[in-house]
Formats: sequence, C-alpha cells, structure tokens
Amino acid sequence: MSESPSQRYKLTVAYDGTLFHGWQRQDPPHGVPLRTVQGEMEQILSRTLGQPIVLSGASRTDAGVHALGQVAVFEAICRIPLDRLAEALNARLPADVEVVRAELAPEGLDIRHAVSKQYRYRMFTHERKPLDRRHYVYHCWQALDLGRMNDAARRLVGEHDFEGFSAAGHGRLTTVRTIHDCRVEPCPDQHETHIVVAGNGFLYNMVRIIAGTLVEVGRGRLEPTVIDEVLAHRDRSLAGQTLPPNGLWLEWIRYE
Amino acid sequence: MSESPSQRYKLTVAYDGTLFHGWQRQDPPHGVPLRTVQGEMEQILSRTLGQPIVLSGASRTDAGVHALGQVAVFEAICRIPLDRLAEALNARLPADVEVVRAELAPEGLDIRHAVSKQYRYRMFTHERKPLDRRHYVYHCWQALDLGRMNDAARRLVGEHDFEGFSAAGHGRLTTVRTIHDCRVEPCPDQHETHIVVAGNGFLYNMVRIIAGTLVEVGRGRLEPTVIDEVLAHRDRSLAGQTLPPNGLWLEWIRYE
Repeated sequence: MSESPSQRYKLTVAYDGTLFHGWQRQDPPHGVPLRTVQGEMEQILSRTLGQPIVLSGASRTDAGVHALGQVAVFEAICRIPLDRLAEALNARLPADVEVVRAELAPEGLDIRHAVSKQYRYRMFTHERKPLDRRHYVYHCWQALDLGRMNDAARRLVGEHDFEGFSAAGHGRLTTVRTIHDCRVEPCPDQHETHIVVAGNGFLYNMVRIIAGTLVEVGRGRLEPTVIDEVLAHRDRSLAGQTLPPNGLWLEWIRYE
Repeated sequence: MSESPSQRYKLTVAYDGTLFHGWQRQDPPHGVPLRTVQGEMEQILSRTLGQPIVLSGASRTDAGVHALGQVAVFEAICRIPLDRLAEALNARLPADVEVVRAELAPEGLDIRHAVSKQYRYRMFTHERKPLDRRHYVYHCWQALDLGRMNDAARRLVGEHDFEGFSAAGHGRLTTVRTIHDCRVEPCPDQHETHIVVAGNGFLYNMVRIIAGTLVEVGRGRLEPTVIDEVLAHRDRSLAGQTLPPNGLWLEWIRYE
C-alpha cells in the first residue's frame, strides 16, 4: 500500500489581533517566541495533523490589526475529512482565532498574488469613549466631512505609484499598485465611519496612511487634492499621519 | 470669606468590566490593591478634586461584569463647574471607564434603594466564535426556543422570595425582591439573544442564575414551570447553572 499523498489546503481565517504580535511568526534566537497568529496556528495544525506544518499567509498583518478573511495555505497528509477540518482546528485554537473555511487549494494558487483584497478602517465618531470597542476602532471625535473625504478617496482609485503612502523600508521591488475601490461609509447606528479600500496589493502601512490622510481631509486640514500631490511627488511627508493598527480589519482576499 | 460648602454629586458610570476585579475596592492588608472600578475612580476623583474622595456605588458588579449605567455618589468641595466635571474626569480615567453624566445628587437620594434596575444578559447564538465580542457575550451555540424561554421569564415577574435564584452567603436580611419585567429578545442581525431583567433589587448572582435557568428551558432540558418550583421551594439546586460574568451588563438604575 502506498502512503496517502500530501495535499495543499487553503484556510480562510478570522482573528482578533489585539493580543497578537501580528500574523507572522517571530521566534527570537534567544528568548520566548512572541505570540503570533501564524505561530499559534502552526502549532495547532502540527499537533492536530501529527506532522510539522508550515503555514503561509497572504497578508502579513501588523500587531493589533484584525482579520475577517485572511487566507493561508499549507501542505499535509491529512486524515481528517475535509468537511470536519475547520471544526477540529477551531476546537483547539485559542478564542481569538477561528478557521472560517477549510478547502483544497486550487491548483497553481499563489496566495501572494491576489486579484483583490479589501481592508476596512473603522473609526468611532462620537464624543463618548468606545469602551468595549476600544481595541477594534480608532476614536475620532472631530467632525468629519464625508463629501470631502469621498472626493479624496476617488482620487486613489486606479494604478498609481503609492510610494508616498507607504512607510520606509518596505523592501518591495515596485511600489505600483492598483486600487479598485476606495470609499467612506457612514454607519450612524453604531456611531462609526468606515474607510473601505480594495486593491490588488498594499504597501507597508499603506491603508493606515491612506486613512490618516482622509481623516485630515475630513477635518479640513488638508484638501482632497493632496492625494494627487502625494501620488505625483511620491512624498510621504505630504500625506497624513499613520493611524493606529487597532481600527484596521482585513476583510477578504479574492483569487482568480 | 467662608469655605465653599461641600456638596453631594451623582455620577452615571459606564465600564468594560473585563480587566477589573469588579466594582468594589479591594485593598488586601498585604500586597498590591486589586484593580477595581471604585478604586480607580476614587484615585482619579481624589487627584482631580484635590481631596480624599469616597465613592459609593449602587451595585457591586462582579469581576468581568460590564455597566452602561452604574450609579455612584460622592461628597466634595468641587471647584470644577458641574457641566465640565464629567469631561475633566474622563480625560484622566482609563480607557475602560467613562463618566456618562455628572449631576448634583437629589436631596435624600439613597443609592442602595432604587425604584428599578435593569440588567441585560447577552448571548452570542451562532456556531461561529464571537472573537472580538468574546469578553462581552456568553457563547451559546445550542438552538434556543424563545417561546419557552419567555413563558418561563414571565413567571419571574412580581414579588417573590428569590432565595432559590441566589448564591449562598449573600448575607441579606431578606431575599424577597420584585421583578418588574423579564423577557428574552432576539437580536438576529448581531447573532445575539438577550435576557432582559428589571427589578427593585437583585441577590448575589441572581441574574446569572436566572439566565442559566432560562437557557436550560430554551434548550428543552428544563420546563418553564421550573421557575415556579424554584420560587416555591427556594431551592437553588432545582435551577440552572450560573452563567459566566462576561455576558452581563448593568443597563440602568432609576430612583424616585
């Protein structure tokens, strides 16, 4: 009898990033490994499947950033039926990580090359404190002009060089990305305003700098045309500040 | 010139109870004081008003229990205008406590004797994990029959001896209380079901035991008439389990 063949699996993963040092495994040469989503999941996968598992994620979310639809792949000889795999993993994973879906990876899937990803930056726009939402929203108590913000947001759509909207030291070959959609959505019943951005890829801190710039436009401290200037001059110093990670949510990632 | 007279103030307070050892100050004779809402607020009040402040709360919520409308009173000579007092305190209070309203206490107010208080027990009723709500809801993935639960809930309304719905060692003179309202509310858009209870007072763990009993009725493991039996026999062992504190919210407290 031959060994069962190893197969490649695709997981859709949700997590509360508050108590994680980001997605990516961090094992300092001396000292205790930091708690990361990849690290926790690889441990649970390895223990559940009885073999060492390497899990590759589509997006390296930072410490404090949350996900509803992160995508990750691994290769394994899996004796658990596919329709029970998510349940088996969820029973062992900590309360702040959840496998939303487990499936066989389509042939040739390269998770680093998505057709589109969507991020949502949640802002709590009320003078009261966010209390039980404080780890999941950015508290923005100043009045925001959503018309101005959407004017600015539209200027980001298309293929551009986004170097001016990225933190230094990103180490990418190209800083050209395509933004498919960028808009500001009011959620008045929750006292929230969301900045939604979808694109084929994002540079380091890009969504948080876009959000910080749109907030400055909404407050009237920058004009919507600042977007054109940051894009044209690729100058980070013209854009707004980098907003904190806790308001940022990775919503979904789509492939061919 | 005479000293400004001291006055009595009433605060309405909201908090996320996750990281507190309950409302009531706990200063062990040896060792570090535990982090409590009363303890944190007395420190900030004393520092802000420049005099030692004793703050009395209406309800001694347990560790992990949240509040939207706790009520507390203190006496002080306050040089901060009343309409700026909440703001001044909020700027110094930690992110998980908020003064919602500050006002002069009506004469003769005895905060321990409310006309009515309302608690809400939030349950997350979906097979998925609550992730970012895990500290604020109880995860109940079994199907609940809300008709049966409301049948049971109605039987609690009125003046009864609630000894069977309380934890031992409560040390109260009487275990008779009046429940004005008790109902089960579906919140399908949030995948939640809430148990709402209002009454003139509650015994130790009473709402959490009521919630645990209603859940057993909803799951079909107890009949709605169990309520009548627990009340008649004042027998804790006939009721359901005490649900965890994190789903419990003190909503409001009303006085004459």
